[in-house]
This record gives sequence, structure tokens and C-alpha cells, in this order.
Amino acid sequence: MAKKIIGIDLGGTTVKFAILTLDGEIQQKWSIPTNILDEGSHIVPDIIESINHHLSLYQLSADDFIGIGMGTPGSVDRIAGTVIGAYNLNWKTLQPVREQIEKGTGIRFTLDNDANVAALGERWQGAGENNPDVVFVTLGTGVGGGVIMEGQLLHGKAGCAGEIGHITVDPHGFECTCGKKGCLETVSSATGVVRVARKLAEEYAGDSELKRRLDDGQDITSKDVFELANLNDPLALKVVDQVCMYLGLALGNIGNTLNPASIVIGGGVSAAGEFLRSRVEKYFNEYTFPQVRQSTVIRLAELGNDAGVIGAASLALQFLD
Amino acid sequence: MAKKIIGIDLGGTTVKFAILTLDGEIQQKWSIPTNILDEGSHIVPDIIESINHHLSLYQLSADDFIGIGMGTPGSVDRIAGTVIGAYNLNWKTLQPVREQIEKGTGIRFTLDNDANVAALGERWQGAGENNPDVVFVTLGTGVGGGVIMEGQLLHGKAGCAGEIGHITVDPHGFECTCGKKGCLETVSSATGVVRVARKLAEEYAGDSELKRRLDDGQDITSKDVFELANLNDPLALKVVDQVCMYLGLALGNIGNTLNPASIVIGGGVSAAGEFLRSRVEKYFNEYTFPQVRQSTVIRLAELGNDAGVIGAASLALQFLD
Repeated sequence: MAKKIIGIDLGGTTVKFAILTLDGEIQQKWSIPTNILDEGSHIVPDIIESINHHLSLYQLSADDFIGIGMGTPGSVDRIAGTVIGAYNLNWKTLQPVREQIEKGTGIRFTLDNDANVAALGERWQGAGENNPDVVFVTLGTGVGGGVIMEGQLLHGKAGCAGEIGHITVDPHGFECTCGKKGCLETVSSATGVVRVARKLAEEYAGDSELKRRLDDGQDITSKDVFELANLNDPLALKVVDQVCMYLGLALGNIGNTLNPASIVIGGGVSAAGEFLRSRVEKYFNEYTFPQVRQSTVIRLAELGNDAGVIGAASLALQFLD
Repeated sequence: MAKKIIGIDLGGTTVKFAILTLDGEIQQKWSIPTNILDEGSHIVPDIIESINHHLSLYQLSADDFIGIGMGTPGSVDRIAGTVIGAYNLNWKTLQPVREQIEKGTGIRFTLDNDANVAALGERWQGAGENNPDVVFVTLGTGVGGGVIMEGQLLHGKAGCAGEIGHITVDPHGFECTCGKKGCLETVSSATGVVRVARKLAEEYAGDSELKRRLDDGQDITSKDVFELANLNDPLALKVVDQVCMYLGLALGNIGNTLNPASIVIGGGVSAAGEFLRSRVEKYFNEYTFPQVRQSTVIRLAELGNDAGVIGAASLALQFLD
């Protein structure tokens, strides 16, 4: 029987699993809740038990697999196979994840950080169309990303390559949790979009449903902002325009520096779809020089929640001789 | 005898040559003027003749070499071994450089663009200290660069990776030759520094030798600006501060995106040395998030004019099995 790979996408609320062919086709998919109690000490045993349980369910054994790849929050030491500082998992101390999972399953194991793994997934089976040069940006609670160039995932000196959320888009902008000012994340994450809305609402005097809701003290979300913009609410349109300007500037400068085949936008905020993409592209074109404008395209992510397990599984392809 | 490599740095006024050991030590170095007459048709024959002449001078033969690498202006097709659109060489049409040089010397040949090759040189034998992740920026007549990540030179979809000079540092800034606004090149090339000086002089009312020279219609250079700043001329200090702010912003965002071990500053403007570097670093630290600030360093280039031939020669190492 043809060998397979396993991908694990470890998150703060669920652990997603998938069994894939070496061509990247998902054959089985399941998930379990993440039990972060007792300093996250149940997480790895739960993963091992779930894998072993599903392999016996599908009448598969360790020999049927090339390896397991996993995407995880926190700081990853790829060489040592460990994770530290994944606070949403309650993993404060060093976790010898590889050692435990290899021992518990009898299958070789490798890991990388969650945004990198999602980038690998979109590049391999999604909007990246398996091009050698693809940049992925995820607009969610925060803004993260991953950079693949010449077919290789980039890590950088301290593993921070792809931390696109901390590109400075406005030296005099909002304060970021990282301690500096004007990070892309402060204006284009889900909370960033709302922050821009509140700021622009202060100065806005015209008629606007968004303005009314904000003045009324209602909780609004980035989804609300995009929905109202879609209905031509003038303030919401201004907010979306500013968010897309900042995204176009940051992605434009990534384009000017790296000239990838595509920059793929994913994460919750990207649910705004073509409405968002076309506006980001407009500014991307304004902020890139002609050869980049003509060769680097802005695309929407295609894999949704599957990007993580697919990209994670692709890490295990390194175990093929 | 141990095999050697040849590096060629093809420029608009001179062609530089060097014979190197496989460890990157220069054993012989010479140069010839670039004859751009007759649509640059003499350039390649001159290169071939000069190599063959020097090999016989040093009693070496084609068999003593692994290969030749060359850095060139223009658009390079690395696969085909051709160059097109190198206007300072009068090469408007496609030049089958590899075919001609391999035929004329009997030595394998490869090439890349001049800024990339200088980046390879500084990374291998200069300030990059042979780290796997090094970004090089050259501040000269224009601003160019090269990006090496995970030990590989990045090219991008259309060969534009490393075109750092066209990073947008001010969306409302000066117009650039590329057609867009606020490119790093417009404010930090040799002419860019003077452009900033003229702009700031208009608004400057205080006492300043730089202001006096500009008002007097004297020609000033970027070197003059840095020299006057070194003498505490208040306007010149303002100009240097603004130039370094833009450089710190652009290099900071490269740091936030790629987290290289070092970003190396070379080219004529970098002759300003530590005076420039320390000021760029100050802004780099302001525009990078903590992990990048702690792991990516700003360095001055160390190889000067030799970066090109050394980096070019390193291209030929690909012919080692």
C-alpha cells in the first residue's frame, strides 16, 4: 500500500488531524478538544492516543506512514523537536514533543510554527499553486504569516521570518502589544479593523450606520465593518479603504523585496473575499514597481481550516529519502 | 594542484577579474576598461581574450578551474545564460554570454545580476560572516540589494527579489524613475541624499554651511552632506537624520519580514561609515519588534570593490559535485 503522512494542527481550542496521501490529498480528517488543564500536560498524551485510536480504526499501522508533521503555537525548536512559551496551551516550560510523540506512535515526527505550516499548506495545495515563491499572510485575532522562497520555508536567525504583522506601516500609528508603533497588526487584524473604525468615527460627521452603532456603544466586529461597507456605508467604506491601504503598503513592500509569485491572504478577516482582495490589490499596485506589479499576484486563501493540517503533513515529506 | 574559480564583475566602465581558491581567497586580480562601442559587441570577446591571456601568464589552463561566475547589469536569464537590457553596456538585444564565454575559454560559466553577486560576496567573505541569512543593500547612484536566506540567493518570480531600492518609505514622497512615489532610492542613494538636502534647505532658516552652499548654487554631493554633518552643521545633521530614518524604516521592515542574521550596508554612500550605521541602527531598533531587534544586526560592508568578483566567483561553486 502507498505510504501516507499525518498532519496535526494544534490550536488553543481544538487539535485537528488528517491522514494524507503523499500528493496532498486528505483521506481522513478528525479533531479533538484541546485540554489545556494541568499546564497543558494532557495535550501530547491526548494526541498520541487519538492517533493510535484512529490508526486502529482505519486498520493502519505505523509502517504505513512516512511521518507526522505538526503546526503549533509558541516558540519551536525544530532541531530539538521542542516547544516553549505557547501560552494559549498553558505550555510555559519546555515541551519535548517530538520525543514523546515518536515514542507513543512509533512514527517519525517534525514540527514548525502554526503560521508557517498554514503557509506551506496554501502554497502546496491552495492558492499558492505549488509555486516556489509564495508569501502567506493571515488576518485573524493577530496578523501572522509565512514566507516560502525557492521552495524553502524561511525561518531567519531567531525564527521570526514571516512575522508580517509587525511590519511598521505608520511610524506614528497605534501602539502594538509588541511595544512598537504602527504595526500592520494594529490596523488589519480583526481588532485592528475595529480600532481604525473607532478612530475614523471620531472625526466623521456625516450620516453612517457604522457611526450610529459606535456612538450607541454597540460592540462591532470587523465582519460588521465589511458588511456595512458592502452596503455602501460611507464611514465603513473609509475604514475598509484605510485598512486596505495599509495592507497594500505592507504587501507591496514584501513584493518589492521578494517578488513572490503570489501573496496569499487568509484568516478570518479574509472572509470579506474579493471585496477585500481587489482593494488591497489596488494599493499593492500603487506601492510596487512595474516588474513586481506585473509578476506578483494577490490571492485569497483557498483551504480555510484545512491549511494547517495539509501544511503540517507536508513537513513530513522531509523523511522521504 | 587545487582547483580554482574565476569571478568577473562586469560594469559600465571597467570589467574586474579575480582568480580565487575554493575557500574564497583572491590569488590574482586585474581589470580592463569596458568597451561599450558597437552595441557592446566587444565586451564578451575582450573578456575571453583577457582570461586566456592571464591564464597563460600565470601558466594555468582551463583544467585548473571549476568554473567562472559573473555579475552583470541588465536582466539575467540564469537558465539560458543570457543578458538583455543592460543599457550602460549598450546591450539592448539578447546576449548569449554563457555560450560565447564557455566556447572561448573552455571553462564552465554561470552568471547573476550585479547586486545579487555583491550580496553573495559580502555574505561569503565579508560582513555577512557566511551566515545562512544575510540581506545586502548597496547605496550608490541607485539603491540595490540582494537577499540570501537559508543559504540560497533569492530571485523571485521575475528576478526582482532584492530590489530594495523600490521599497516605498513615504507614499507621498518624491517621484522615482520607476514611476511610483517615495521609493527608498529617492532619499538614500547618492542623489537621494542631495535631494533630501535641497528639500530641507527650503524650509530651513538657521545658520548652516550646507544651506549657504545650496543657496549659493554650488554643486554638492552626498559626501559633502555627511562631512558637514560630521562637523555638526545643523541642516546637514537634519538631512542625515531623515535619510537614516528612511533607511531604518526600510531595513526594519526587511528585518520584520525575514529576520536575517545581518543586514549589510555597502555602496558609495556607506563610506560615511559608523556615523551612518549607528544612526540607521537607531531607527532600525525603533521599527523592529523585540526578537528581531535582538537577533538581526546592521553592519557595514567590508569588501569594497572586491565584493563583486568574490561573489561572482562563488556562483561557480555550483559546478562542484
